[in-house]
Amino acid sequence: MERVFVTGAAGFIGSNLVDRLLELGKTVVGWDDFSTGQKLFLENATKNPNFKLIEGDNLDLPALTKAMRGCDFVFHFAANADVRFGIIHPHKDLQQNTIATFNVLEAMRLNNVKQIGFSSTGSIYGEAKTIPTPENAECPIQTSLYGASKLACEGLIEAYCEGFEFEGYIFRFVSILGPRYSHGHIFDFYKQLLDHPEHLKILGDGTQRKSYLHIYDCLNAVLTAIEKRTALQERHRVSIFNLGTKEYLQVSDSVKLICQTLNLKPELEYTGGKKGWIGDNPFIFLDTARIEGIGAAAKRTIRDSIVDTINWIQKNHWILERNN
Amino acid sequence: MERVFVTGAAGFIGSNLVDRLLELGKTVVGWDDFSTGQKLFLENATKNPNFKLIEGDNLDLPALTKAMRGCDFVFHFAANADVRFGIIHPHKDLQQNTIATFNVLEAMRLNNVKQIGFSSTGSIYGEAKTIPTPENAECPIQTSLYGASKLACEGLIEAYCEGFEFEGYIFRFVSILGPRYSHGHIFDFYKQLLDHPEHLKILGDGTQRKSYLHIYDCLNAVLTAIEKRTALQERHRVSIFNLGTKEYLQVSDSVKLICQTLNLKPELEYTGGKKGWIGDNPFIFLDTARIEGIGAAAKRTIRDSIVDTINWIQKNHWILERNN
Repeated sequence: MERVFVTGAAGFIGSNLVDRLLELGKTVVGWDDFSTGQKLFLENATKNPNFKLIEGDNLDLPALTKAMRGCDFVFHFAANADVRFGIIHPHKDLQQNTIATFNVLEAMRLNNVKQIGFSSTGSIYGEAKTIPTPENAECPIQTSLYGASKLACEGLIEAYCEGFEFEGYIFRFVSILGPRYSHGHIFDFYKQLLDHPEHLKILGDGTQRKSYLHIYDCLNAVLTAIEKRTALQERHRVSIFNLGTKEYLQVSDSVKLICQTLNLKPELEYTGGKKGWIGDNPFIFLDTARIEGIGAAAKRTIRDSIVDTINWIQKNHWILERNN
Repeated sequence: MERVFVTGAAGFIGSNLVDRLLELGKTVVGWDDFSTGQKLFLENATKNPNFKLIEGDNLDLPALTKAMRGCDFVFHFAANADVRFGIIHPHKDLQQNTIATFNVLEAMRLNNVKQIGFSSTGSIYGEAKTIPTPENAECPIQTSLYGASKLACEGLIEAYCEGFEFEGYIFRFVSILGPRYSHGHIFDFYKQLLDHPEHLKILGDGTQRKSYLHIYDCLNAVLTAIEKRTALQERHRVSIFNLGTKEYLQVSDSVKLICQTLNLKPELEYTGGKKGWIGDNPFIFLDTARIEGIGAAAKRTIRDSIVDTINWIQKNHWILERNN
């Protein structure tokens, strides 16, 4: 891994990855369509002579293929990352996740690039029967178009590993927190409390239990897993890792912590129901023994990560004003 | 289920389903793009006033949506059913299976049709660790673009069940045999032996163990499962059934039986290797306890099915001449 292609390079996770790769001395080609990515996230990267930014769309296979030329590893982190609104625009997950991933794989094949790291999600487990959920849990039933599209991407990557001798690293993330966080429940709560500090509306009854991971722990796990690839090689050249912490947090406790950190005491309005929205999984908790087994356990607690996220938003209010 | 829409209506399985539905007194709208479907398979159906044939492509969503108007159940049996050649044209499984299925689901949503029966495949289990493989086997690793695309379709159907209150019946088929069989190893062997009866080339070393099911047993299982739906309702409105027999056959034994039935003694040439091709799963055997539990076990043996298939091809040599 010397010349690395990163899709979604201007996104929350992608831009942090770009910075880390540059720190490690890699040459990085960043690719983003800026539909949700932020130029400001690449402020430091663009000062580095080892970084090249190319603006483009994953649905444009010729441009993608051209941009990838000369690279030897692809991190495919571009995605429609919104799990909640799939049913509002059902084609979005298909196009931006499934078809986009197919194009990334085709561009790799055409460029003879054979190694890919992919950001999948714990959502592919649907309402898992085994919790904490291990990587080899039973065949899941999808509950969202987002989860369905990410599982489709995993399948495509696996088929390319078998058919074209690719080497794939699939990471099933819980919700990621930390600097450049720009989407999710903390973001929504923060915006609400800025508008009306005395009142907070919360989807569901607050009993949903969710898992979170700090972006720095996430990237440490991703890079460690790839570094130790030889020892860990699985059948079919595919390595799959759950990425999360050994804890989870109830939404009502998350709310308390956010309000404490902001020093606010809003009246809380729960919309009710075990699920926050259609397709919401009320309990997400991944078994992370596999990634811990290679020495890449998360170091930060969920509480630390939430506080760090709020601190970052407080210093970067511009993120609240962007259009997407 | 009174007015039934069948995609792939002119295919091997689809056309047999159309005939069965018409026998049951249903009104049927058949939809096919005739890329591999055969007009002759619908010879009887087209004489029935309850049958309407509409020629069209699943990638044409407006036409598909219009054709489906007024129907109350969709059997989505159109597919690129070729597991072997995925790596020759990687986009084909994506377009004809994944995107086509998305369009079928969208057409259903736009027409407020909420029930779907889907032909999936045992290939989604990849090289399963548990054999016979049950429906809730562990999260599989895909070994073909075909399997990956069918798993993607399953995920889409499941997400529509959750998001739009659809009711889905997913059937994971082994290889189907019987009248109108027009693709697969018996077909290939038959053609070879017609060309050169003294020699037969077989992919792999002959030790691959595969499962087969007769089309009539397949359709009996499909229709029984849907009929008994109320009693069997699973979580998320999704019902998944493996369809197969309680036996499997080694390729070398299949070869013997085919040669006996044709009264030929060719010299056998095995190309060697445990797999017949890249992505071939050397042992496919599904656990069919679930479908047997509702009284829809297969009645025909694999041997009966192979002989029946050869008899049908012998009486229908025109199928050997078609272009696809």
